[in-house]
Amino acid sequence: MAPSLEYYEDISSGELPIKAIPTKINGVEAISGLQLDQTDKHDIVLKTFRAFIADLCQQFGGGHPGGAMGMAAIGIALYKYVMKYSPTNAGYFNRDRFVLSNGHTCLFQYLFMHLVGFKSMTMEQLKSYHSDRTDSLAPGHPEIENEGVEVTTGPLGQGVANAVGLAMATKHLGATYNRPGHTVVDNMTWCMIGDACLQEGVGLEAVSLAGHWKLNNLAILYDNNNITCDGSADVACTEDINTKMQACGWNVIDVYDGDHNVTGIVQALLTARISQKPTFINIRTIIGIGSSATNNAKAHGAAFGVQDVAQIKKNFGLDPEKHFEISDDVYSFFDDVKHRGEKLEAAWNTTVEDYEVQYPALAKEFKLRVQGKMPEDWTKFIPSKDQLPSKPTASRKSAGIVCNSLAENASNFLIGTADLTPSVNLAYKQQQDFQSPDFVAACGMTGDYTGRYIHYGIREHAMCAISNGLVAFNKGTFLPVTSTFFMFYIYAAPAVRMGALQGLQQIHIATHDSIGTGEDGPTHQPIALPALYRAMPNLLYIRPCDSEEVAGAFITAIEATSTPSIISLSRQNLTQYPQYSSREGVQRGAYVFIEDSAADVTLIGIGSEMGFTVQTRELLQKEYNINARVVSFPCQRLFEQQSREYKESVLRYKSGKPIVVIEAYAINGWERYADAGISMKSFGKSLPGAVAYKHFGFEPSVMAPKIKGFVDHVKLEGVESLRGDFRDLNGSMSYGLEH
Amino acid sequence: MAPSLEYYEDISSGELPIKAIPTKINGVEAISGLQLDQTDKHDIVLKTFRAFIADLCQQFGGGHPGGAMGMAAIGIALYKYVMKYSPTNAGYFNRDRFVLSNGHTCLFQYLFMHLVGFKSMTMEQLKSYHSDRTDSLAPGHPEIENEGVEVTTGPLGQGVANAVGLAMATKHLGATYNRPGHTVVDNMTWCMIGDACLQEGVGLEAVSLAGHWKLNNLAILYDNNNITCDGSADVACTEDINTKMQACGWNVIDVYDGDHNVTGIVQALLTARISQKPTFINIRTIIGIGSSATNNAKAHGAAFGVQDVAQIKKNFGLDPEKHFEISDDVYSFFDDVKHRGEKLEAAWNTTVEDYEVQYPALAKEFKLRVQGKMPEDWTKFIPSKDQLPSKPTASRKSAGIVCNSLAENASNFLIGTADLTPSVNLAYKQQQDFQSPDFVAACGMTGDYTGRYIHYGIREHAMCAISNGLVAFNKGTFLPVTSTFFMFYIYAAPAVRMGALQGLQQIHIATHDSIGTGEDGPTHQPIALPALYRAMPNLLYIRPCDSEEVAGAFITAIEATSTPSIISLSRQNLTQYPQYSSREGVQRGAYVFIEDSAADVTLIGIGSEMGFTVQTRELLQKEYNINARVVSFPCQRLFEQQSREYKESVLRYKSGKPIVVIEAYAINGWERYADAGISMKSFGKSLPGAVAYKHFGFEPSVMAPKIKGFVDHVKLEGVESLRGDFRDLNGSMSYGLEH
Repeated sequence: MAPSLEYYEDISSGELPIKAIPTKINGVEAISGLQLDQTDKHDIVLKTFRAFIADLCQQFGGGHPGGAMGMAAIGIALYKYVMKYSPTNAGYFNRDRFVLSNGHTCLFQYLFMHLVGFKSMTMEQLKSYHSDRTDSLAPGHPEIENEGVEVTTGPLGQGVANAVGLAMATKHLGATYNRPGHTVVDNMTWCMIGDACLQEGVGLEAVSLAGHWKLNNLAILYDNNNITCDGSADVACTEDINTKMQACGWNVIDVYDGDHNVTGIVQALLTARISQKPTFINIRTIIGIGSSATNNAKAHGAAFGVQDVAQIKKNFGLDPEKHFEISDDVYSFFDDVKHRGEKLEAAWNTTVEDYEVQYPALAKEFKLRVQGKMPEDWTKFIPSKDQLPSKPTASRKSAGIVCNSLAENASNFLIGTADLTPSVNLAYKQQQDFQSPDFVAACGMTGDYTGRYIHYGIREHAMCAISNGLVAFNKGTFLPVTSTFFMFYIYAAPAVRMGALQGLQQIHIATHDSIGTGEDGPTHQPIALPALYRAMPNLLYIRPCDSEEVAGAFITAIEATSTPSIISLSRQNLTQYPQYSSREGVQRGAYVFIEDSAADVTLIGIGSEMGFTVQTRELLQKEYNINARVVSFPCQRLFEQQSREYKESVLRYKSGKPIVVIEAYAINGWERYADAGISMKSFGKSLPGAVAYKHFGFEPSVMAPKIKGFVDHVKLEGVESLRGDFRDLNGSMSYGLEH
Repeated sequence: MAPSLEYYEDISSGELPIKAIPTKINGVEAISGLQLDQTDKHDIVLKTFRAFIADLCQQFGGGHPGGAMGMAAIGIALYKYVMKYSPTNAGYFNRDRFVLSNGHTCLFQYLFMHLVGFKSMTMEQLKSYHSDRTDSLAPGHPEIENEGVEVTTGPLGQGVANAVGLAMATKHLGATYNRPGHTVVDNMTWCMIGDACLQEGVGLEAVSLAGHWKLNNLAILYDNNNITCDGSADVACTEDINTKMQACGWNVIDVYDGDHNVTGIVQALLTARISQKPTFINIRTIIGIGSSATNNAKAHGAAFGVQDVAQIKKNFGLDPEKHFEISDDVYSFFDDVKHRGEKLEAAWNTTVEDYEVQYPALAKEFKLRVQGKMPEDWTKFIPSKDQLPSKPTASRKSAGIVCNSLAENASNFLIGTADLTPSVNLAYKQQQDFQSPDFVAACGMTGDYTGRYIHYGIREHAMCAISNGLVAFNKGTFLPVTSTFFMFYIYAAPAVRMGALQGLQQIHIATHDSIGTGEDGPTHQPIALPALYRAMPNLLYIRPCDSEEVAGAFITAIEATSTPSIISLSRQNLTQYPQYSSREGVQRGAYVFIEDSAADVTLIGIGSEMGFTVQTRELLQKEYNINARVVSFPCQRLFEQQSREYKESVLRYKSGKPIVVIEAYAINGWERYADAGISMKSFGKSLPGAVAYKHFGFEPSVMAPKIKGFVDHVKLEGVESLRGDFRDLNGSMSYGLEH
């Protein structure tokens, strides 16, 4: 679906007030051809808006006024003229998505939402910015939980990648469900950025992908005030950003007088709407305009002070004695927006109704997607235990077996990889790549926008940040899967975190975990990373020990509709334990793997190290006459959610027998459950996987005598003696027994 | 010091074999003007090299052959002709630095090191690649511990930023210490990359900075084989990389036949040497050249198989029956390299000797820098306790007080910030920015290459990866300080980790920690991140509670010469405890803050939450007649290094009294030391800092009764009952008392 004049006419059928088509794309100068005959009105809105922001920050002596003030004219262009949305129903499915990637300028969004009539953004709420109200809808950065906010932003650069995900969502849904004369999805994504978002690597990664995918339904609006916290942005960035964006496959439009030229900005936005490529609109603005900190870094993140706020109003010809003043004229200027939004939504509803008549089967699926539901029969695509391999299998392979079937059959699954297709085993039958048809035609490759297999390139961070955008498009419409080596989810950590913070369900497939990954060496062997993801709120880090547990991990991840999951998998083959392992057990976080009522010790086994744990149990029995039970512990957070009784039944603290955990990661956090551990005390080493394990002491013949010594010690000293004396049974930092 | 022909002549005085000056810079086509009359010899070296790599990977059936084979001609150009280095003394100070950012092609480096005669890289060592030898000097990725390796690489993109740091180091030292006719530092940095390193955000951030700083002593050699794991690199990247690099301020040189055109590559490298900007050399190569996987992703990360290895040799006219064959001709081709290196080093030594005579004071300082030593009197720049503020002070301010004096006086301190100068308080008196003199002249700003204050822009990841490069230039020559909000060290985590892995001392100043940062909200409030850094091997995460502890944190960080430190600091004012706090205590990780021999409970207080802890202690006494002692616990890793006796003296487990930790982070890891905790169970919230603390229960009047209940419970049930029953005294996931 190439954009065209018709396309534009079509999207403007909801009576957007502007129908003029700009004549130049990619021009260096502002494009002319349209005059909005409302300059006077714009002027008073701009002044009112800016004075109000100054008041808001002055109220509690803090906040970010300068950027928002500078961006006022951009807001008029978007909220009054060009953006397709409905204040009455912020969630209307085919709305344009707006991302404020420079989230610290949130007052820009809040105040425009108030002016156009979003119900929740009352005057009282507006004024709760930086207050001590715990029910504020005006937090310091936009938060997805609140009406009219598409994604939570703040950590810079994330929003750019989120916007790419949102635009992909539209492209994919449009290509999949639109039919001639029945355009059910065709919204734009508008992404506002400041000077930082394209300094951040994640923004640059995403920009490269958007250009590659020719996401012409995406526009970045660059609030180019050229001021950052350290002063002129030039102090650290003097690149030619326009040329850089063009080199990445973007159209570029300059607007030089973006502090007031609403018409120019409107034209640029309309041009973006009919572009063949994503569009970068470089809008020069003036930070803190009207204040004494005009064009100064001081306008960025602090209130102006009482005097200066008064002076701002005087400069604007407003009454310095009045605060939070919005005249009826200003409100009435935006009067038409609500009605227009309702008409846009009604028009879309009609379109969908017609569509249901013409394409009932497709419409049924489409409505399920709109409702954000999994296909009802998804559970049948999860292999049963007896369909899973019984021979030693790498859990990354098991994950492929489980996920491929889901991917083939569930249209909401979007499988992605950071260039590790041959390693992560997620390519599935009849897989189609997500690609621009233009690209495919030019390169002789396959794929189009209906494709559900995404090559993110070697861009782990953008992959996960884009994935957040895909989910945020409409919760449940997509269940994206990302994939790379577990170690490289450290690159993606800021985005994984934002997914958890926002409750954006997705599945991160993290292969090659622990030191078992082998020869690639310490750079590729995660040691500390699990501590981050186990501590992260609203994230499930699941480390299954065999194929059955992998199935359990997927079921858990799919059922966690407001929580992202990381499924942590081995490179190497793992012994399968169909006699012990349980998908239901995974869902409870930990469970009894091998029971022994006469146990002297409980061993906690996890993921790729379960084999060693079971073997150690056998050796303890055979060589030392020590009975051990084994607990499988794939997910700490799920276990924490269990009842106290269940926990006791699994770990049997009351038995007074010690508990030893075996995992080739840093121990941090296991002290909650275990009395002693065999873990990693240093970074790893480049050795074949099995040799690496041996090198670091993960060998049953080495572990068994250590555990025996520990069990003997506990028998002698009593289990009470273990308090405050967690035993590291290997490594140089251990103390106690070995000393 | 602008580069010039003289400059080039000067650096080539060590008898590099090439003196021709190329005539074109930034040309689109390969530059002509030089013919190396050794094409036949190159041909046999290329074939031998490629067959040998195939043998190496075949030996143990794994590894990364394809890229290294493709890059062979680049290696000849570098190692035989252009690079200034000495195989006899890999550490010679003024050597060119070589970074293999595409570290998986390590065999490229290992084999050339062998051919030119690096002592450690024997045939036996070469063949230990992917073996089970724990003393291998040929690990799966280059490791800094080994001779001839400047930085450990593997996680893609890092090397690009490391190389920027290495080039900055040269620029800074040159500008600071070189005098007319006495050039003591002027080496180049050559950075080899593959298709991934400029897809990764960290690479792109670093590239932008290198262009801004006009680091003309830096060249990127792009091994453009256009193949990644997923196939053609085009599948995810179709940008115009040359234009992009030019837009970032780089010269661009194309080499189209880089698989064999040694002369063309040499010319490009020489052109880079005299460029006014950093140079990007786009060299087209052929992955897996000669194999059946030529130009195929299969050549990337797997052995070719016995048959194909034989076929490769046949294709090259070599004997398929012979393995690991290197003829005398091939060795002798590199014969001159060693001798040349020795002469280069000798010439440098003479230069330094003359310099010592002419500039004795400067030379004394320079030699200290070469030896990697702090100024001897550094301790006198650390304020004593009575010089520190006694009124409530934000610990970020305390850090400024301690660090500014060091920065003013210690020439090895390089202070950097990711655009948070007004927030992190690290700007010091007479601070000079690190900037290109050209830029300064053009913009009317201040600074030059002697500057020791670095504006990294909003590029946290590149900041820390560049910092790694600065340290790696020569351990101890620089002690870089980076700074941003603690939360944004999650962006930098991959680089912070590489610093820890490589033992690269530096200080990361992480301000605005915990929920006390306030209104910016959950996006800016770290909860899980401390768990990562506390678990990370060879990293000190230090969270001081007042100015005295901040001084202790700096002393600790400065004395940890092979370990990076993160000093975690508050945005808000903190009560100062000169009567309790101790810099020596910080160095032991934890210490008794307030002793009470009759204590019913030990409270662990940390960093910004110490004030609440002390107040809670007072309230427990006053309201509930419960005696509490307080332990300050700024650093878990340092505490782990203490003796068992010391630990017991601090935490007094044997007293049988319970221990409660109070910290506004995820609890994970504290279970090792405490029996119960008041911590964060969710992400934070946008509220004024003090209100946020209150909202999440960090209020003495809320905490005291909870702790009282817990103490009562322990009295009743006995301390033994706490095993396996860690108490979360707040939050929805707690169990036990509250149920």
